Amino acid sequence: MHVRDLRWLSAAARIAERGRPLSRPNPAVGCILVKDGRVIARGWTQPGGRPHAEAMALAAAGNMAKGATAYVTLEPCAHESERGPCCAGLLARAGVAKVVVGAYDPDLRTAGSGNAMLRDAGIEVAEVAHEGCADSLAGYLTRASLDRPFVTLKLALSLDGCIALASGESQWITGAAARAHTHLERAQHDAILVGGGTLRTDNPRLDVRLPGLEARSPERWALTRGDVPDGWRALRDPADLSALAPAQYLFVEGGAQTAAAFLAADAVDRLLIYRAPIVVGAGQTGVADIGLGSLSDAHGRWRQVDRRTLGTDTLEVYARTR
Amino acid sequence: MHVRDLRWLSAAARIAERGRPLSRPNPAVGCILVKDGRVIARGWTQPGGRPHAEAMALAAAGNMAKGATAYVTLEPCAHESERGPCCAGLLARAGVAKVVVGAYDPDLRTAGSGNAMLRDAGIEVAEVAHEGCADSLAGYLTRASLDRPFVTLKLALSLDGCIALASGESQWITGAAARAHTHLERAQHDAILVGGGTLRTDNPRLDVRLPGLEARSPERWALTRGDVPDGWRALRDPADLSALAPAQYLFVEGGAQTAAAFLAADAVDRLLIYRAPIVVGAGQTGVADIGLGSLSDAHGRWRQVDRRTLGTDTLEVYARTR
Repeated sequence: MHVRDLRWLSAAARIAERGRPLSRPNPAVGCILVKDGRVIARGWTQPGGRPHAEAMALAAAGNMAKGATAYVTLEPCAHESERGPCCAGLLARAGVAKVVVGAYDPDLRTAGSGNAMLRDAGIEVAEVAHEGCADSLAGYLTRASLDRPFVTLKLALSLDGCIALASGESQWITGAAARAHTHLERAQHDAILVGGGTLRTDNPRLDVRLPGLEARSPERWALTRGDVPDGWRALRDPADLSALAPAQYLFVEGGAQTAAAFLAADAVDRLLIYRAPIVVGAGQTGVADIGLGSLSDAHGRWRQVDRRTLGTDTLEVYARTR
Repeated sequence: MHVRDLRWLSAAARIAERGRPLSRPNPAVGCILVKDGRVIARGWTQPGGRPHAEAMALAAAGNMAKGATAYVTLEPCAHESERGPCCAGLLARAGVAKVVVGAYDPDLRTAGSGNAMLRDAGIEVAEVAHEGCADSLAGYLTRASLDRPFVTLKLALSLDGCIALASGESQWITGAAARAHTHLERAQHDAILVGGGTLRTDNPRLDVRLPGLEARSPERWALTRGDVPDGWRALRDPADLSALAPAQYLFVEGGAQTAAAFLAADAVDRLLIYRAPIVVGAGQTGVADIGLGSLSDAHGRWRQVDRRTLGTDTLEVYARTR
């Protein structure tokens, strides 16, 4: 595999993110058509899941697609549906010369038969296990492998790990830029969850208040065994996360008991820590008991994958390592 | 002031740090002699405080000093002592053409008369309020202005602000590289302090265990109203910090009550946070009650001035902003 091909796949993975999260229940796929070293068309999964990325790119390319190389983040689908044609067939009919595939599709209706259909049509197919493509499909692949959404736990903490004063005062730990970033994260999730205590105490709106993205406000869930108000749904236990289907991305916003419940259940894939440069001292901490038996069990679980400055605050992103 | 002059002062400030902390009770000063754009000699305050930086540099330069520019981090001293001649006089006799001074000396025996003596000898003197020079003299200047050492509070924390499990297990939160860095920090301090509880529970050695730096182990203090073992000294309250004279740099290593006592007394100048990529959950937190009345009082006090990766841990350094 040429490094140039890996870069085109990375570009396709970035374009794929435009489809997130509105592509559900379909994966958010990206497709780039390249001919003579130049991009001739791009596509990504449209809201509701159709058209697929390949169909969008091929429609834009028209006759130009003949002889091009298609870079797709996920194996092209092999099944016809009443909602649209299969992408492997579309690619074959358009006469592309080669397809570079960034991730294998675990959907049993495709699962290798997309690539086989392309090869049967005389198209060269390169299969790559591309990290960027897998990352861009995290929600879809987590649902396929674990029957639950990809879970991000957000914590907004002081330097000493507090989310509030002992009195309960929590507005604000972080500044305006960090809070705006949280709204952007919400817009990339299908579902958002807080604990029953937070729901009763704060009655949070949990919507996206960024201009142009209001329609992205995710479905609202509460971790509780009790009743929830209109517009909310109840999750009894992190073990029941399959109930969130078809949501691919869940954003957990606290409080401390809820954060602990998800961590203790090993149901957190990504930690988002907004850190304010303040010391609170003996306040309410962000994570309750997770049942940790010894410090050695805590090590090796998280790897910092991103860090950025947001006003005077810092955002640190950690990915699970196992 | 030319930017080139500011850079030479920065270089002098870096050299000055070689004198820390063994220069006590004298300030750790740096001096660079420059002629025709090239460094001809360098000096820094030697252990015990003599020779001074200027004397060391002039001795190295010999006759070359004639016509050179001297960059010194602190105003040259104006007082003769039985321990050595005054540096303003030495610079004049050596025939330097110009002296660039990075910080005013608040010592009443100098306090402007060093610069005056140079000018009386026909030497051009440029006085700069240079941030790097002031930083390199933080211990000396804090002692002069507040009658206490410059105080660094070190915290080794999990992502959620814990220093130990609820059971007390604390070995280890951070990894080997972070712990070695702590020893390096100890070697740059005159005095080190832990709380009485930590002393009784852990009986820590608090020495410097880096090859070649064992002799740098600082004086050991405990924050306690009780008795302390041999080799230790007792501080009853952060308000009594003048008792640590002539120490210029105090390193506070915890525990949580001691960290809180120093923060509540507004006696912390620098925060050193070693952050491990682990979540503990409901553990022992690093900072006890600091008497914070509202979140708005917590903001605007700390500014991140450095950050580095130490193995899988991160070191963040914060400076007080007021």
